[in-house]
Amino acid sequence: MIPYFTFYRTPRIIFGAGSIQEIGRMVSDYGNNVLLVTGKESLTRSGKLNKIVRMLEDCSISFSRLSVHGEPSPELVDDAVSEYRGKGIDVVVAIGGGSVVDAGKAISAMLPHDSSVVDYLEGIGGSTHSGVKVPFIAVPTTSGTGSEATKNAVLSRIGDDGFKRSLRHENFVPDVALIDPELIIFCPPDITAACGMDAFTQLLESYVSPESSFFTDTLAYSGMGYLKDNLIPACTGDSGSIDVRASMAYASLISGITLANAGLGIVHGFASAIGGIFSIPHGVICGTLLAPATRKNIAVLRSERSIESLVKFARIGALLEDKTLMPSDDTDKYCDLLISTIDRWTEILHIPLLREYGITEGDLDRIIGLTGNKNNPVQLGADDMRYILSARL
Amino acid sequence: MIPYFTFYRTPRIIFGAGSIQEIGRMVSDYGNNVLLVTGKESLTRSGKLNKIVRMLEDCSISFSRLSVHGEPSPELVDDAVSEYRGKGIDVVVAIGGGSVVDAGKAISAMLPHDSSVVDYLEGIGGSTHSGVKVPFIAVPTTSGTGSEATKNAVLSRIGDDGFKRSLRHENFVPDVALIDPELIIFCPPDITAACGMDAFTQLLESYVSPESSFFTDTLAYSGMGYLKDNLIPACTGDSGSIDVRASMAYASLISGITLANAGLGIVHGFASAIGGIFSIPHGVICGTLLAPATRKNIAVLRSERSIESLVKFARIGALLEDKTLMPSDDTDKYCDLLISTIDRWTEILHIPLLREYGITEGDLDRIIGLTGNKNNPVQLGADDMRYILSARL
Repeated sequence: MIPYFTFYRTPRIIFGAGSIQEIGRMVSDYGNNVLLVTGKESLTRSGKLNKIVRMLEDCSISFSRLSVHGEPSPELVDDAVSEYRGKGIDVVVAIGGGSVVDAGKAISAMLPHDSSVVDYLEGIGGSTHSGVKVPFIAVPTTSGTGSEATKNAVLSRIGDDGFKRSLRHENFVPDVALIDPELIIFCPPDITAACGMDAFTQLLESYVSPESSFFTDTLAYSGMGYLKDNLIPACTGDSGSIDVRASMAYASLISGITLANAGLGIVHGFASAIGGIFSIPHGVICGTLLAPATRKNIAVLRSERSIESLVKFARIGALLEDKTLMPSDDTDKYCDLLISTIDRWTEILHIPLLREYGITEGDLDRIIGLTGNKNNPVQLGADDMRYILSARL
Repeated sequence: MIPYFTFYRTPRIIFGAGSIQEIGRMVSDYGNNVLLVTGKESLTRSGKLNKIVRMLEDCSISFSRLSVHGEPSPELVDDAVSEYRGKGIDVVVAIGGGSVVDAGKAISAMLPHDSSVVDYLEGIGGSTHSGVKVPFIAVPTTSGTGSEATKNAVLSRIGDDGFKRSLRHENFVPDVALIDPELIIFCPPDITAACGMDAFTQLLESYVSPESSFFTDTLAYSGMGYLKDNLIPACTGDSGSIDVRASMAYASLISGITLANAGLGIVHGFASAIGGIFSIPHGVICGTLLAPATRKNIAVLRSERSIESLVKFARIGALLEDKTLMPSDDTDKYCDLLISTIDRWTEILHIPLLREYGITEGDLDRIIGLTGNKNNPVQLGADDMRYILSARL
C-alpha cells in the first residue's frame, strides 16, 4: 500500500569529486553577474576558494563577494539585500557550510523584494512570500544541514528575545546543488562530527516522521546506509578520503531532501528553541540530544505499543548491522542496538554537553516551554523533554 | 564509493487516491486561464473528466479544451500552438495517457515561441530550445511512460520517412505531477499490460545503464519492488484495486525519474526506430521485446565476463523472489530467473507479436539500421538485434 504523499522539487544535482569545475557553466545558465556568498573558514585557507574565483573569471563572470560569519541573522540578510538590490545580480552562489548556504538562500529570496526578511519568517512575520527570487546555486563545504536541497533558510537572532526561524517556500529549493567532496575534505573533525550527527538526526527523524512516505523512506534508508560506515572515519583517520567524504555528502544531501518532504522531530524542536537563546552550533545540539531523544521516543512508543513506529526504528537498528529487518526478527533488540550505537557515536566523536555552552538546569523550563514536537512519531510532554535535556546537561 | 552523478529536478509530486481534488489549487498557483489537453478515452466515458472540469469551474478557472487521439505528431503540436498562442494561457494541464501528457508537454514548451516544434526535435531540427515555456501540470491516467516526471516529449511522424523523436530540455520536467490512482482504474487490461511492461522496461534499462547512479539505482530498485507484485493483478483480477493501481502508478512515476537521469537501453532503441515506421503502441514494442533483449544482453555480458552488470541484473532477479542478492549468491541463477519471469509476464499478459502490427522479416534490416544502443549496458551489433526482433516477429 502506498498512501498519499507529496514531494517537493529537488534541485538539479551535480555530485562528485571535481564537480566544482562545472561552476562556470552552471552560473552561465543564469547570467554573468554573481553575488558570491562565502564563509571565512577553511576553504579560503586551503586556497580552494581562489581557484573557484579563477574558474568564474575564466568564464567572464563578474562577481561581488559577501563573507558570512556564524549563523545568519535577519539583519545580515537585510543588509546584504540593501547593498545588492538593483545591481542586476543574475544569480546568488553560496559556497560554505549550512550557515553560508542559508544566508545565500535567504538573500536570493529577498533580492527582488523591498521588505525585511523578518516579515516572512515563520511564526514571526505576518506576510506570505510570493516565491519570486533570484536563481540560487548552493555549494556545500560541510556535510550536515542538507540545506542544498531544502526549501527553507534558518535565520537566528540570539538572546533573551531571540528566535531561530525559517524563511520557507518551495521555490527556495536551490536551482542547483553542486556537491564536490574535494571541497569538504578541509572541514575540521569537530565540525564534521557535529554536522554528521545532524545529517543522521535529519535522516532518522524524517524516516520515523508520520509525514514520511514510501518515497522519502527509500531515500532516507539509503542515506543512513552510507552514513553509518563513514561517519566515524570522516571524523578520525579517513577525513582526507574522497570516498568517505562523498558518502557523508550524499547522506547529507539525501537528509535535506527527506526533511523537506517528511519534516523533523523532537531533536529539531529543541534545536529551534535552544538555538534562539544560546550561541551553540546547530549540529552540536542535534548530535548531543539524539541518543536520549531516541531512547525516550522508543520508551514512549513501547508503552503505547506503537508497533509500526517501533518497527521503523528497528529497521534502522538492523541496517547498522547490515541486516534487513525480517518479520521474525526481534524488534526490541534492534531498537536497543540503534540507541546504543548513537550513544557510542556520541562518545567517540566527543559531542559536547549542553553545559559547555552555558546551559544550566535553570534554563530547562524555558527551553521546554519553547520546544515543539514537530513531526515526532509520538507527542512528548514536559517531563519527557526534561529527561532528554538532563541527559546531556 | 559514490561516483560522479547528476540529477535533474523532479516535478512537484502530489500522489494518492483522491489527489485530483488538488487540481484547482495547483492550477491557481499559476493563473486562471488553462489549456486542458485530454484524450478521447475511458476517462470521459467514466464521467470522471466531467467531475474534473467542474472542480476547475468551482475554482473560477476558465479553460479551453483540446482532445488528442493517438501518439502526438509535430503537426498536432504546431496546430495547437497556432490556435492558443497569444490567448493568455497561464498553464497547460494534460490529463491522459503518455501520448496526451507528451502532447501537453510539447505544447507548453512551444506556446511562447514562433517556430515549428520540428526545429527543436533531437536529430531532426537544428535549433536549441531556450527552455522558456508555459507552466505544465501532468495528470497521468495510465501507468507506463513516466512522462509526468521526464524532461522530454516524444513526437512521431509515422511512415516511410517517419521518425519518433524527442523534444527535450530540463525545464520541460512538469511543474506538477498529480497522480491519482482513482483515475487509473479505468485503464483497460491491454493498455495496463503494455504500459506496465513499458514501466518495467524503463526501470530495468535505467537500472543497468552505465549512466545510472546510486541515487537512481535506489529509486529504480524500489520501483521494481512495487511493480513485480502488482503488474499481473492490475491487468487481471485486481484492476479495480486502488492499492494495486497506486503501486503501478508509483513504479511508473519512478521509472520516469530514473530514465530522465540514467537513460534507457536497446529496447527503447528499437521503440524509437519501429515507432517511426509502424503504428504500434510504444508499450507493446517495449513489452514484446524486453524478454529477448534481456536474454541477449545477459548472454553478451556473460561472454564478456562483465561481472558488475551481471550482478545488477541478478539483483533484480533476486528482488523478484523478495530476496536481497548476497555476495555468496549464484548470479547466473538470478539472471536466469529474471529472464524467465519476463517471459512469463509476456505470456500471461498476452503481449502481442510484432507481426500483428504488420512487421515482417523484410523490415528487419531497415529497423536494425535505425536502431541505436542508447545507454544499453553492452553494445549490441546487427546480429544481436536481429535475434531480439526475430524472437517476437
